[in-house]
Amino acid sequence: MFDELRFSLSLGSDNHSGVHPKIFAAMMQANRGHAHAYGMDEVSRLTEQEFKRVFGPDVEAHYVFTGTAANVLSLAPLMRGFEAVICSQVAHLHLDECGAPEKFLGGKLWTVPTEDGRITPAQCEEILERRGDQHYSQPKVVCLTQPTELGVCYTLEELREWRRWTKEKNLMLHIDGARIANAAVHLKTDLKALTADIGVDCVSFGGTKNGLLGAEVVLLFSKQAKEGFKFHRKQAMQLPSKSRFLAAQFYAYLKDDLWREIATHVTVTAGELSARLKDFPEIKQPLKVQSNGLFVCLPKEWINPLKEKFFFYIWDHQIGMCRWMISFDWTKKQSDELIESIREVRKCFPVK
Amino acid sequence: MFDELRFSLSLGSDNHSGVHPKIFAAMMQANRGHAHAYGMDEVSRLTEQEFKRVFGPDVEAHYVFTGTAANVLSLAPLMRGFEAVICSQVAHLHLDECGAPEKFLGGKLWTVPTEDGRITPAQCEEILERRGDQHYSQPKVVCLTQPTELGVCYTLEELREWRRWTKEKNLMLHIDGARIANAAVHLKTDLKALTADIGVDCVSFGGTKNGLLGAEVVLLFSKQAKEGFKFHRKQAMQLPSKSRFLAAQFYAYLKDDLWREIATHVTVTAGELSARLKDFPEIKQPLKVQSNGLFVCLPKEWINPLKEKFFFYIWDHQIGMCRWMISFDWTKKQSDELIESIREVRKCFPVK
Amino acid sequence: MFDELRFSLSLGSDNHSGVHPKIFAAMMQANRGHAHAYGMDEVSRLTEQEFKRVFGPDVEAHYVFTGTAANVLSLAPLMRGFEAVICSQVAHLHLDECGAPEKFLGGKLWTVPTEDGRITPAQCEEILERRGDQHYSQPKVVCLTQPTELGVCYTLEELREWRRWTKEKNLMLHIDGARIANAAVHLKTDLKALTADIGVDCVSFGGTKNGLLGAEVVLLFSKQAKEGFKFHRKQAMQLPSKSRFLAAQFYAYLKDDLWREIATHVTVTAGELSARLKDFPEIKQPLKVQSNGLFVCLPKEWINPLKEKFFFYIWDHQIGMCRWMISFDWTKKQSDELIESIREVRKCFPVK
Amino acid sequence: MFDELRFSLSLGSDNHSGVHPKIFAAMMQANRGHAHAYGMDEVSRLTEQEFKRVFGPDVEAHYVFTGTAANVLSLAPLMRGFEAVICSQVAHLHLDECGAPEKFLGGKLWTVPTEDGRITPAQCEEILERRGDQHYSQPKVVCLTQPTELGVCYTLEELREWRRWTKEKNLMLHIDGARIANAAVHLKTDLKALTADIGVDCVSFGGTKNGLLGAEVVLLFSKQAKEGFKFHRKQAMQLPSKSRFLAAQFYAYLKDDLWREIATHVTVTAGELSARLKDFPEIKQPLKVQSNGLFVCLPKEWINPLKEKFFFYIWDHQIGMCRWMISFDWTKKQSDELIESIREVRKCFPVK
Repeated sequence: MFDELRFSLSLGSDNHSGVHPKIFAAMMQANRGHAHAYGMDEVSRLTEQEFKRVFGPDVEAHYVFTGTAANVLSLAPLMRGFEAVICSQVAHLHLDECGAPEKFLGGKLWTVPTEDGRITPAQCEEILERRGDQHYSQPKVVCLTQPTELGVCYTLEELREWRRWTKEKNLMLHIDGARIANAAVHLKTDLKALTADIGVDCVSFGGTKNGLLGAEVVLLFSKQAKEGFKFHRKQAMQLPSKSRFLAAQFYAYLKDDLWREIATHVTVTAGELSARLKDFPEIKQPLKVQSNGLFVCLPKEWINPLKEKFFFYIWDHQIGMCRWMISFDWTKKQSDELIESIREVRKCFPVK
Repeated sequence: MFDELRFSLSLGSDNHSGVHPKIFAAMMQANRGHAHAYGMDEVSRLTEQEFKRVFGPDVEAHYVFTGTAANVLSLAPLMRGFEAVICSQVAHLHLDECGAPEKFLGGKLWTVPTEDGRITPAQCEEILERRGDQHYSQPKVVCLTQPTELGVCYTLEELREWRRWTKEKNLMLHIDGARIANAAVHLKTDLKALTADIGVDCVSFGGTKNGLLGAEVVLLFSKQAKEGFKFHRKQAMQLPSKSRFLAAQFYAYLKDDLWREIATHVTVTAGELSARLKDFPEIKQPLKVQSNGLFVCLPKEWINPLKEKFFFYIWDHQIGMCRWMISFDWTKKQSDELIESIREVRKCFPVK
Repeated sequence: MFDELRFSLSLGSDNHSGVHPKIFAAMMQANRGHAHAYGMDEVSRLTEQEFKRVFGPDVEAHYVFTGTAANVLSLAPLMRGFEAVICSQVAHLHLDECGAPEKFLGGKLWTVPTEDGRITPAQCEEILERRGDQHYSQPKVVCLTQPTELGVCYTLEELREWRRWTKEKNLMLHIDGARIANAAVHLKTDLKALTADIGVDCVSFGGTKNGLLGAEVVLLFSKQAKEGFKFHRKQAMQLPSKSRFLAAQFYAYLKDDLWREIATHVTVTAGELSARLKDFPEIKQPLKVQSNGLFVCLPKEWINPLKEKFFFYIWDHQIGMCRWMISFDWTKKQSDELIESIREVRKCFPVK
Repeated sequence: MFDELRFSLSLGSDNHSGVHPKIFAAMMQANRGHAHAYGMDEVSRLTEQEFKRVFGPDVEAHYVFTGTAANVLSLAPLMRGFEAVICSQVAHLHLDECGAPEKFLGGKLWTVPTEDGRITPAQCEEILERRGDQHYSQPKVVCLTQPTELGVCYTLEELREWRRWTKEKNLMLHIDGARIANAAVHLKTDLKALTADIGVDCVSFGGTKNGLLGAEVVLLFSKQAKEGFKFHRKQAMQLPSKSRFLAAQFYAYLKDDLWREIATHVTVTAGELSARLKDFPEIKQPLKVQSNGLFVCLPKEWINPLKEKFFFYIWDHQIGMCRWMISFDWTKKQSDELIESIREVRKCFPVK
């Protein structure tokens, strides 16, 4: 049907890739006969069991369509309009949701400076100073991105310290985990250890960037996080009707730990690529590679010729830092081609 | 994968069915290699041409995930918070969106009484009396459902009169067309005649209830309707990332007029079933059958035994009126079985 | 300063009158030296004691600027966006707030038909049927207007039944009491009996329509009603800075039961006027007079000549029903003049 | 009535003072007979003429109750939810409105670093880089505080450059002028030169901090700023009913340029006090004194003894910077007493 179309390879984002074959197969399997809508179907029930297996028995998993929705809806039961979310200055929630949190939550974000996307409790102390002051939007939730928008992971120790501190300060804790599977692989742990065992209130658990067609999940752990969630979701226009097809995607993703297979592939591939880039002293990598993203400062002349072969985005124009995202279907052969392309570009544009 | 699951036949809703094989095939075809996200891909471009072919060159088509979102986002560029939507008392917008319009639009719905879901301009005159009164939420848009929630169609003449009247009154006009394809078949016309040619500002064009996996489209025609739409959509958390898979569904749905094939099947089937029910004087059909839904008043004792065979919802408990929705994959054989089941129930529970 | 201006007498609204001399004097007394802002001043502290004297020790009283704000902010701590308020079809909250409840609360109003502004629990049962259904805005609070917009009072028995029923149904109960002082007089009871003793969650306690310059109070009784109120108020832009001047008004209004003196005057005056109107069989009074408002159906020809002498609003154009509101400073002499004017108009425009 | 109360002198805020006698007298004069509500009265009409005299014939002046409301409502007609306001990191709008802008506007603030509250166009260029990117909240309005929260004024040249730049960038321009009268005095100009002549779209024109009882005005100049304003105000719960009393305050404030008299008194007094403080080398004044506020870094031991005599707030705990605000009724004698108190404190707590 789309034979004439070009589907070229991209480093632009992990949502430039398509759907993992096993995910697609599961949707096909689910496409039989009729089923109740709105999560009352049998595929959803089966998938619920998978979520409980992976994240523990207390988890409630609710499908939504986008990462924006997963983040905003995670926060909805935790706060009122006069309350605020604390997040990093580069948080997707702050920079890339077109004001969705402010609009739906009716509240505010207090942001904290960061180098690699991580923030610390000590940085947030100042924001708590005006607690009780009716003129000041009251801090209520901390939102951490794991791995961060810059591809760096909080360690388990850091997360535990965050939970200890937020509990002490009576703050809720949310994790934006659009790529949290990669963090689990990098940290050599599992998803439950990174979420339920830390004691977080809720998690945006990403699917679309990890090989799904289009599905995200909000994982709810604490009592307050679960309060009224399904109504918030419907009011946010995020209630899927033929929900079996979202469930089927996650069923396949969790079943037999396909999530780990995919996350291992992209994280290892990114690490290998990062190592091979060290042969090019012209290329700086200012950030640790702890997920499926590489942040590379390229000589300015190299950017366009390389972009023509492998599309990618310039992350920071001032320092010429580009972001290369590895998708589930990126192969060793493609890494070779990329390295080869860099070599060619180096020849044409030698850096003095 | 889901071999053990039961996917039994349902009259509950047209979203209880799965995905039409041609729609599914199109998604599969689109699942090759990498493509830009957020609507910048080639499948989206091709599908845009199909939309222009079917709805005329002025249309802008934007994918969203749910019917709720299609309705609310259609209205977003048309009004400010102090303005109001006029709709029928049984409009899905009013009764079944969990307050999504009020929340996202920050405005109000003024409702009008109705028998079969249709309303008339004359009924709305009273609402316009307080125009300019700063205490009163100012009417700004009329929202018609075509076919209505009760399966009845506005005629082309009625729609033209609505457009004339709304223009005269400086009101915008939106159509909730979750099943508008069925209306086009019933009215023996095409989609453009029902929308662009009427001169409506925008339309919620349904997919999910007509055999798609999960995709709706907002069709924008007028300048004001297009103003800032894409930002509204993102802020409403409805921007699809792997959008090629939503586009592919609509590509297949519009291509070779598959929409008409499906709409004809369900509308004709509903009409035939309605005719055959006339053999049962115990069953009342208080509403015209002009789409894929039948509204049948059953003897109370018949409801549960029939529901066991074919799931359906009781629409109005007071008069025992049930709703039977015909999906794209409902067959002649199933109609026969349904009629047979009614005969059996009649034997067991004769009505005196 | 405004010597040249005309301040003519009006029946248009009880907010057409000015400020009661004792209220004005209190503001003047409060205008000495400096005081803390935002409610932390001594006048506020004194007035708090008056509120506790009149409404009981559990009350929390918070000043706001308008009746709209009192109503909306009363509801804010009681509900989330996906929840709904039940009120009458003619409630000020529904018809006359320009969508403020929908905008600030992010939720919906479910309205109930009414003749005289009163509604009954039985009428609301249907709205509760879809509790738990995620598509339906969930009923959470009942809002009663006492006296109603049509000047009729709920009896103490009716209010008690409302509280019993709402408790049983797990609903909160709010009273829009813009003129509740008049109801207390009509029902020969006191303000505590009508509010705290009923067990309502919160009350909009009106000032401006009862002789104050411009101040309303939200009275909070239950724990949930008090939750976070001051932050909601600030976010609603209703936190007064020089709050001593709002407090001073209420101090004078409550002190020595000035509220009762004013309410008695307007309620008795309205009742007397109503009785004297019975001499005019051309004038119909379809509603009971139980507050300071008269609703009179006048012969059409009488309306304009009378309006020229005493401004008033036509409430219902279809039946020619006008609303006459008695303000605190309306005198016996003015009632005489009004009756005299009617006599004159009758002479000029005899009704056949 | 409040004879027993203590109204002690405060440097805490210019809203700790009461009402200027001429303002109070005007309200008293307006308290005669009946008048139409909601701005349709004669006092409002007269005051409108004063506004046109002072700000030019194009101005529309609308009363609101609080500075928060003036700011938020100024912005409401200028932007949609997906758009953003650019303001300084210390803007009242950002730090001190408890999220009111985010809640009512449904949008976002992009903040810019600042030393003395002023920001420059060059600082905002970066924010414009993502214009058109649907993931990014779109910059639409610049909000400047004049004088800033730190008491410093933008010069007329700076304002003109802001207007030139915002026009070039298709941005609207709003001024938070809670104390703009003081800026006019400092800059030796008039109010029109600072607003209408600059070509700003709208201004929050403060009253309460300048000797009024409680009234602010939104001044609208451009067509877009005026669009639907009165409905926004009502929906924001800010429509005054007995509006003649807000109008009367501004009538007196503008009449015979009382505003200038008050602004001159507080600005000159603050300047004199600042000069006298130079006798105390222990006291640092890191900011220019260009309005009625002094920002003084005091030796830590001095703070509490001084606060006992004259209440004030510590602005920045880290550097011990306190804010002293001069109200309209602060006298030369009180300045003498303050200086005397400092001398005494210096004796008790000599700084080595």
